[in-house]
Amino acid sequence: MGHDSATAAAPVTFQRSPDSYKHWKLHVDGGVATLTLNVDKDAPLRDGYELKLNSYDLGVDIELADAVRRLRFEHPQVRCVLVTSAVPKMFCAGANIRMLAQSSHTFKVNFCKFTNETRCEVEEATAQSNQRYVAALNGTAAGGGYELAEACAEIYLIDDGFSAVSLPEVPLLGVLPGTGGLTRLVDKRKVRRDIADVFCTKAEGFRLRDALRMRLVDGGWPKSKWEAEIARHAAQTVQAGGGVGSEQGIALHPLTRTESTSGPSRTLRYPHVELVIDGSRRVAQVTVHGPSAPPAATAEGLWGQGAGAWALQAFRELDECLLELRFNHNQVGLILLQTQGDAKAVLAHDDALSRLRAEGSWLAREVQLHQGRVLRRLDNMAKSMFARVLPGSCFAGTLAELLWCCDRSYMLDDPSQPSTLALHDVNFGVHATHNGNSRLQIRYFGEAGALARVRGLSGPIAAAQAEQLGLVTRAPDDLDWDDELRIAIEERLSFSPDALTGMEQNLRFVGAETCDTKLFGRLTAWQNWIFQRPNAVGERGALTMYGDPRTPVFDFTRT
Amino acid sequence: MGHDSATAAAPVTFQRSPDSYKHWKLHVDGGVATLTLNVDKDAPLRDGYELKLNSYDLGVDIELADAVRRLRFEHPQVRCVLVTSAVPKMFCAGANIRMLAQSSHTFKVNFCKFTNETRCEVEEATAQSNQRYVAALNGTAAGGGYELAEACAEIYLIDDGFSAVSLPEVPLLGVLPGTGGLTRLVDKRKVRRDIADVFCTKAEGFRLRDALRMRLVDGGWPKSKWEAEIARHAAQTVQAGGGVGSEQGIALHPLTRTESTSGPSRTLRYPHVELVIDGSRRVAQVTVHGPSAPPAATAEGLWGQGAGAWALQAFRELDECLLELRFNHNQVGLILLQTQGDAKAVLAHDDALSRLRAEGSWLAREVQLHQGRVLRRLDNMAKSMFARVLPGSCFAGTLAELLWCCDRSYMLDDPSQPSTLALHDVNFGVHATHNGNSRLQIRYFGEAGALARVRGLSGPIAAAQAEQLGLVTRAPDDLDWDDELRIAIEERLSFSPDALTGMEQNLRFVGAETCDTKLFGRLTAWQNWIFQRPNAVGERGALTMYGDPRTPVFDFTRT
Repeated sequence: MGHDSATAAAPVTFQRSPDSYKHWKLHVDGGVATLTLNVDKDAPLRDGYELKLNSYDLGVDIELADAVRRLRFEHPQVRCVLVTSAVPKMFCAGANIRMLAQSSHTFKVNFCKFTNETRCEVEEATAQSNQRYVAALNGTAAGGGYELAEACAEIYLIDDGFSAVSLPEVPLLGVLPGTGGLTRLVDKRKVRRDIADVFCTKAEGFRLRDALRMRLVDGGWPKSKWEAEIARHAAQTVQAGGGVGSEQGIALHPLTRTESTSGPSRTLRYPHVELVIDGSRRVAQVTVHGPSAPPAATAEGLWGQGAGAWALQAFRELDECLLELRFNHNQVGLILLQTQGDAKAVLAHDDALSRLRAEGSWLAREVQLHQGRVLRRLDNMAKSMFARVLPGSCFAGTLAELLWCCDRSYMLDDPSQPSTLALHDVNFGVHATHNGNSRLQIRYFGEAGALARVRGLSGPIAAAQAEQLGLVTRAPDDLDWDDELRIAIEERLSFSPDALTGMEQNLRFVGAETCDTKLFGRLTAWQNWIFQRPNAVGERGALTMYGDPRTPVFDFTRT
Repeated sequence: MGHDSATAAAPVTFQRSPDSYKHWKLHVDGGVATLTLNVDKDAPLRDGYELKLNSYDLGVDIELADAVRRLRFEHPQVRCVLVTSAVPKMFCAGANIRMLAQSSHTFKVNFCKFTNETRCEVEEATAQSNQRYVAALNGTAAGGGYELAEACAEIYLIDDGFSAVSLPEVPLLGVLPGTGGLTRLVDKRKVRRDIADVFCTKAEGFRLRDALRMRLVDGGWPKSKWEAEIARHAAQTVQAGGGVGSEQGIALHPLTRTESTSGPSRTLRYPHVELVIDGSRRVAQVTVHGPSAPPAATAEGLWGQGAGAWALQAFRELDECLLELRFNHNQVGLILLQTQGDAKAVLAHDDALSRLRAEGSWLAREVQLHQGRVLRRLDNMAKSMFARVLPGSCFAGTLAELLWCCDRSYMLDDPSQPSTLALHDVNFGVHATHNGNSRLQIRYFGEAGALARVRGLSGPIAAAQAEQLGLVTRAPDDLDWDDELRIAIEERLSFSPDALTGMEQNLRFVGAETCDTKLFGRLTAWQNWIFQRPNAVGERGALTMYGDPRTPVFDFTRT
């Protein structure tokens, strides 16, 4: 089943910068940024396919994610982001089919998860950072191309008698639109479900007039007026957003790390985060180090630290580790999470960020939002996660969220060298999960009073109390610790990885559902199934046969 | 991949009655009913496995569904239903593993869907019919056995030093608990997600003391006190429910039908419903006939009609057709739904039922609840559904719901012989979908005012108006009708059935999510995926190897 980054090709790398983008152009002019897609067909991430017609692969999407993030940190004055194309008559043809057809099941699923997360970042920028994304479809948006548009707050389509929007995945490829297309149609854009059905089964899609009637787009203009009207609308959007911002951006410097390997094991060491992959056991150990210096006390001070601020840099490093684990270490089934450092220092950073954010610091807000995104990326790992709370750890405030991302947590109860947890206001709403609730709300779902009880706590929380309050799963003493952890880890590693992925996804998102949880909890599952079936990926499956003049052959059994 | 009812063995039949139950005993004593599981291991639905240890197959669950339904109609005075076992030390070992291992993917998925629907019926009886289900676990409840208990309002476990509750699917079988076990743990019973993780990975489960602490059960008693305490609790439950009811039940007579086949086609003809399977095209046509007589005007009159009342009988017949399609006609991919009859007569029946229900008729309530369940069964079909509204049809009130269960609806716009729709109060809340909203609420999700607009309508609605109001998808005129329908049907039949199932599931449940939609929309998808993977069903997969002394072999790639 084609390449797989874990087994074959060179590892995927995740750092990009605009001056070396191959597929996007980022142009900033006052309050308006323009992200122009111009895919270099000869620069795919892997050999074996050409990125024709502005189709994308993971490499294209890693650049997009980079641009979206830089817009928030480096160009915070931007109020409107136009997403458009440099290819005549083609906005974007979606994910590259040859790439999908040659990719392993695991890669396809991880690719979709990453593109989904990037679309969620686009929506968060609109909702939280006053950067409104506007899809300026100056050509056809098909499949993933239309899904990218759906992630924008508004969609405009050129009226040139040719350009259309479409989701041709079901009729042409026998798979689902994998980047939220279905969910956003009905749940976000509120397209009626039977109209959505018509749209999603019509391969050629709809041009402006019908698309407007069906709510697939929000407007459009003929070619003659297109540039002027889009520019006018962008300027209007900036005005509606309060005018060009006065924020001064910071530079997101490249992350540095050292790497070492020893047999099947691999260690990535960043200034604040370590990732040790024990390849022989399919276990990864992730250690986040707390801050060694006090936080900046003023917005200017924080700005001066820029991307070197612990709260930002540590989470950027953690984010890269998570992507490493997803794309370059598929075999790893269990992440052991730990922290090291001074809990008080972590809380001081949370204090400072929350205070500066409340005082109006855009950068403090962006740093906290970034932390939140990385935590949600952690919620989305298709790997089991156990946290270990040991002496010298600093699971406090934002770092305590790591505990509740995990499927289980173990805290050593050793009075001679106590481990402690500490809560902070950020644990009660700042860091929301995909379903909009905090991790503690999810943890105490339906347990009236429990949340208020822990909110009233002050000071460090020892192991026995943490267990009794339900903040950790288990608090074994030093006599039991080694055996209990060893058995838990060994057992976990022996189970079917598919069953674990399914089980964890069903247990992690308790309570209400939102667009996002539908994307990650439901769409992913259906697509996982479809991606596995011969009707899509078999020798005569629709995905395999795409472009072949022969028609695909289906087993018509309905499940 | 083992037997499949569509291709091999005799068709599944769905009618049962207590005097011929093979696996359950239904005993009614005043306000308390006792449902005792005593599986006849030598009476499986199919050859090839023994139903040891009170394990179940579809045959066992069809009897359970029958009992749950009869309790509501035939024994409406019952206020407490004890679910217990006649097998020493074993309440129920869950779904039979050999049966699962030898079943086709499609059968497994349909089996799980049916058992899920039955569990939802149990919960609805508790919530709506004042029949409170109490799981009296006088032995171990493993896997599906514990899931059956979770569907009950309360769970009690015997304290005999042996009996435990467990969900061993993930550790032992490499699949998920397929009947809502995960969702009900965290979303209904509100077990903390890390505790749920511990429970679901511990094959041997937990006995009373731990199970209580973990909220897996609500109480328990030692063996010496068990019978007396359960009886006392049942009596108390009856008291809390207002005492033994005074309702007199009606008999659910067997449905009659005639059957004819012609080549690959098969016709089932019931008094009010017809199912025509065009085997050569993978299309089924379902026609529901409206009532030919006016409704009973009084509760006594309705009671006198009993199961012969159109509103009950027609929906029982439709229900059986849907099960026929699921289990005996897997290849059918498209259902064409139509109605025939007098719309006014349908509305008169809705009027009468709603009025009698408001006046306190338990039977009117049960008939409407039954209609609602059948409509939800229709929502859950893994088949595409198109409604056709033609002259002489009666899509009115409850029958109009059929339209909105469908993925699309077509209404002929021919002024010379007009087709019409008619709405009724029942369309605005009586018939809720799995997410608690009415089908019209889902249809107009986010369209402020639309619901109020159609609510204000009176009288029949012609095609053009119905299309304009969004009540139907399309209203072609008689010139376009044939071509448009033919193309729509042909296209639908040409698409990948997997992609259609996934797409439809993502579009059908718009808006909020509930336990039920998580079961049918999310759990099903993950299980579909897992059921397909070699880690479960391959030669050395965990499900295949169950009982084999060798351990299963997994591909540990995490997806």
